[in-house]
Amino acid sequence: MKAPLPAIPFTQWQATFRDVFEQRLIEALDARLADMPPRLSDAVRYAVLDGGKRLRPMLVMLGYALTANPDISGALPDPTDEAFTAVWPAAIAIELIHGYSLVHDDLPAMDDDDLRRGKPTVHRAFDEATAILAGDVLQTLAFDLLLQEIPDHPVAASVQLAWTRLLARGSVDMVSGQQLDLNPSTTPSEQELGHMHGLKTGALLRSALLMGAAAGRSDITVHASLEAFIAPLGLAFQIQDDILDETGTVAQLGKTPGKDAAQAKSSYVTVLGLERARQRLTETIDVALAALVPLGNAADPLRACAHFVLTRNH
Amino acid sequence: MKAPLPAIPFTQWQATFRDVFEQRLIEALDARLADMPPRLSDAVRYAVLDGGKRLRPMLVMLGYALTANPDISGALPDPTDEAFTAVWPAAIAIELIHGYSLVHDDLPAMDDDDLRRGKPTVHRAFDEATAILAGDVLQTLAFDLLLQEIPDHPVAASVQLAWTRLLARGSVDMVSGQQLDLNPSTTPSEQELGHMHGLKTGALLRSALLMGAAAGRSDITVHASLEAFIAPLGLAFQIQDDILDETGTVAQLGKTPGKDAAQAKSSYVTVLGLERARQRLTETIDVALAALVPLGNAADPLRACAHFVLTRNH
Repeated sequence: MKAPLPAIPFTQWQATFRDVFEQRLIEALDARLADMPPRLSDAVRYAVLDGGKRLRPMLVMLGYALTANPDISGALPDPTDEAFTAVWPAAIAIELIHGYSLVHDDLPAMDDDDLRRGKPTVHRAFDEATAILAGDVLQTLAFDLLLQEIPDHPVAASVQLAWTRLLARGSVDMVSGQQLDLNPSTTPSEQELGHMHGLKTGALLRSALLMGAAAGRSDITVHASLEAFIAPLGLAFQIQDDILDETGTVAQLGKTPGKDAAQAKSSYVTVLGLERARQRLTETIDVALAALVPLGNAADPLRACAHFVLTRNH
Repeated sequence: MKAPLPAIPFTQWQATFRDVFEQRLIEALDARLADMPPRLSDAVRYAVLDGGKRLRPMLVMLGYALTANPDISGALPDPTDEAFTAVWPAAIAIELIHGYSLVHDDLPAMDDDDLRRGKPTVHRAFDEATAILAGDVLQTLAFDLLLQEIPDHPVAASVQLAWTRLLARGSVDMVSGQQLDLNPSTTPSEQELGHMHGLKTGALLRSALLMGAAAGRSDITVHASLEAFIAPLGLAFQIQDDILDETGTVAQLGKTPGKDAAQAKSSYVTVLGLERARQRLTETIDVALAALVPLGNAADPLRACAHFVLTRNH
């Protein structure tokens, strides 16, 4: 791996990462959408390009950077580094799964959302049938892409199989979580809420980080720390989501806030109240950070990522 | 491979095959649905168990039997033969993809069907959201299952990768075809109709046969014959579908006939008329059969399969 980037703020690094990711995503889609009916390929591009925090691809890269080179000083990995070429398919695949889930979850029969990432949702911009099909094909492309061969950057078949299992596991759990979210118990406890979100959101975040790590050196201690980190991080991400749904604006979020209250949906804010939810967010981030202690400075990028989850306003 | 089954009619062989397949499918699902919310796992089982012609899994098996042992006498392969253990995941995976596509295509925003395989469609028996999620998870399970390791029956990683590519290609084309079917030109020509159905139905049938063949010996002549056979077979399958939509009964079909006429949808019957559609069906099967000539007796099971497509009434 080349010399690490000079220390830069995480926000600035994210912007760089997102630009590089966007370019890789565009290339991956161009190679696969050429033969598709234009309305379908337009909907696929509309669904996943030009927007999103790209948190899952970031976790792939941070997981890989940490395990590929655990002695690094803790600088943020340079996303333009050739050393990452082999893991881009994993980073793109997991974002396509995330993208498909947003398109389907926004459908009228599910969460019925009109706005996503500051634009009309796919079924609003196109139509419901196209949104269903675009989601379906995004999932297919994710698995297809994961197993592509990149000349000069071979990935061991064992890594590709591990990726596929992690991606499938995260995807199945995500759908289970959405099913529970659509059919909640009347007054869910905080524990039930945590279980549901652990599936709906946490599982794919876990898959992302572990897919990155699966491409690096196998080290049981490191993997145990990453597992212990990502579960509370996913929870914190969701608590912040619920807080933002209560306190954020359309302009900030790019989607309609206040949905939980309007749909009488349970959230960390409705169950705990806003102040206790904020307190729980801080506590949960602390648990995540504690899990990184054994990794020393090498985990600094993940610490920065946790700080982002704590303070994000979109 | 054990001795082939004694010569039995294809219909009887199909019944045996379907029983064995059903059992393998039940086991594969049981191993994967245990942790799922019951409503979701019930919908998944409801969607794919206990019904269907299982044509795609049959093509996997026939493709494998032919290429694994091209000198066979032409008897139908015994589905209980241990030699097939390694390809069952491919047979199950392709049926799960087919199953997900039926669940999604039946949705109100798509073909809006109430009846499938003699039962209410998944969104009727459960609800729309559950049907969308069940379809989503069926697709995930397909790719997951394809790459599973079966103790004592290893499949080469190269075969698993070839399977994944074929499955992904067939799935993407299938969705492209459905998109074209939903947005047809006003008066499609027979050629346009053929292009659409080649994607919507033909692509996955092709993937099925070639996935079977990918697990056998690589022989360019055999593969070329199979490719030349499966394209017209897929077309014939669709022509017969359109004829049955015009002439069949609910009891025969297990779904509502007359949909094409009711929805003013173009089909081989509306474009060609019933008699010319029947004639085109016979001609197309003849083209398929001609492609099998170089394979000699070994292709007899595929000939029987083509005869089934020609004469099926459900």
